[in-house]
Amino acid sequence: MTVSSELRIRALPGLGELQPGDDLAAVILQALAAARWTIMPETVFVVAQKIVSKVEGRVVALDSVEPSPLARRWAEACGKDPRLVELVLQQSRRIVRMAAGVLIAETHHGFICANAGVDSSNAPPGCAILLPADPDASAERLRQRLHAALGVPLGVIISDSFGRPWREGQVNVALGVAGVAPLRDYRGLQDPFGRRLQASVIATADELAAAAELVMGKIERRPVALIEGLQLGEPGTARQLLRRPEQDLFR
Amino acid sequence: MTVSSELRIRALPGLGELQPGDDLAAVILQALAAARWTIMPETVFVVAQKIVSKVEGRVVALDSVEPSPLARRWAEACGKDPRLVELVLQQSRRIVRMAAGVLIAETHHGFICANAGVDSSNAPPGCAILLPADPDASAERLRQRLHAALGVPLGVIISDSFGRPWREGQVNVALGVAGVAPLRDYRGLQDPFGRRLQASVIATADELAAAAELVMGKIERRPVALIEGLQLGEPGTARQLLRRPEQDLFR
Repeated sequence: MTVSSELRIRALPGLGELQPGDDLAAVILQALAAARWTIMPETVFVVAQKIVSKVEGRVVALDSVEPSPLARRWAEACGKDPRLVELVLQQSRRIVRMAAGVLIAETHHGFICANAGVDSSNAPPGCAILLPADPDASAERLRQRLHAALGVPLGVIISDSFGRPWREGQVNVALGVAGVAPLRDYRGLQDPFGRRLQASVIATADELAAAAELVMGKIERRPVALIEGLQLGEPGTARQLLRRPEQDLFR
Repeated sequence: MTVSSELRIRALPGLGELQPGDDLAAVILQALAAARWTIMPETVFVVAQKIVSKVEGRVVALDSVEPSPLARRWAEACGKDPRLVELVLQQSRRIVRMAAGVLIAETHHGFICANAGVDSSNAPPGCAILLPADPDASAERLRQRLHAALGVPLGVIISDSFGRPWREGQVNVALGVAGVAPLRDYRGLQDPFGRRLQASVIATADELAAAAELVMGKIERRPVALIEGLQLGEPGTARQLLRRPEQDLFR
C-alpha cells in the first residue's frame, strides 16, 4: 500500500446546465477538451450526484406526487411541502429518525441521510431530484466511457453532501465508486514502533469526495472535479462503505 | 463567499519522531526550510493530533494507570487492556455506547468518538496517547508561531481519524482550528435557479482534514500536510463543529 504525498484537485470549468437524457461522459469530455486539460493516469473524477441524477431522469415534478396521510401530517407539523415528504417516504426503506423537523431515512440503497437524499436545491422550479437508482453502476458506466476516450486508468466517484450525527455541517461522501479503492485497510500492518494497527480502515473514497467538494461548492456550477496524484488501488464500490446493520450501534 | 477552483495538497517530508517538550513549530519550520518550500499566503497546515499530543506531553505510561472495577469488567468482556479502558473512562464526560466491544464516548471537549480519542498506535511501547487538552488553543499557538516566522496569513487544523455511524471506515476530522473558517454557510444564498438554499452548511474544516489525510496516511511518518489555493475565510474554531446536544438526534 502506497500513500501519495501530493495531490492536485481541480474543478472542471465550462459545464453547463444538464438535462435528462444528456450524455454526461460526452459533456465532460467536451469540457476537458475546451479546457485543454491533459489527463494523467490514475486521475479520479468526482461528480456531483445531482448532475448524474439529472441526466438519468431522476427529476420529479412535485405536481405529479400524491401525498399519503403520513406525509401530510409530517409536512404540516414541520411546515414542509407534503409532496416532497411523500417523495422522501417513497425513497425510504426505513425511517431512522423523524423528529425536530428532520427526517433521516435509510434509502433503498442503504444510505442513511436526511430526506433519503431527495432535494430540491439546484432542481428545476417545481421539481425535486432523487438519488441515482444505482450510483455504483452510474459511476462504472461513466468510468468506462471516460477510460475508452482518454485511454488511461481512471476512477469515478459520485458524491453528495451528507450531514453527520454529533457534528455540525455536511461533508461530501461517496455514493458511487468505480475504478478506485473505497477503503485503505491498515489492519495487521505495523506502526513505526512495530505495533500492529487494529482498527484502522480509512474511507478514502469519502475523503476524496470531501476533498473535491472544496473546489466544487454547491452553487458555483462546478459539479465535476479531478483529483490527480493518487494511486487507484484495488477497485471497489460504494456499497463497501455501508456498515452492516448488525455492526451499527446507531440504527 | 468564494470557493477556490484548484487546490494542492502536499505532505511535508522530513519530520522525525517527536518527543514531549519538542517545539513543534520549530520542527515544522526546519522541515519547510530543508524541503525549500515557499509558503503561499492562505496555506492551511493540517497537523495530526498525535504529534500535537506528543509534544504537549499527553502520553501516558499504562503502568501508571490503576483500573477501576468498571474498566476491569469491560476490558475482560472485550479482551482489552483494563488500563487503556480506564484511561478512556477518565477522558470521557459521557459514555455514548458501550456495546459489541466498542466504547464510544463524549470527551471532555465534546467530541464523540471511539475510546474518547485514546489510542496506542504510534505511541511509544507501553504508552497511550490522549487528545490535546484544548486542540483549538494548540492550533492557535501553532498558527501564531508559523505566521510570525513565515509572514503570510495561515490556517492550522489539528486532525484525527474518527469513525462514523452507518458508514464503514474512518475519515479525518478537525479537532482544532485556527485562522481558517470551519464552516461554509450557504443558507439564504440562491442556487442557479434562484431557489434559496435552506440547510446547506458545509463543514469545510472537516473536509480539509479529510483531504490532508489522503497524503498523510497513518504509518507513513507524514503527520503534517499543507493545503494551498484556499481562501481562509472568517477564522473560527473546531468548537463550532460540535453539534449542540439539543439539536442532536443521535445522543
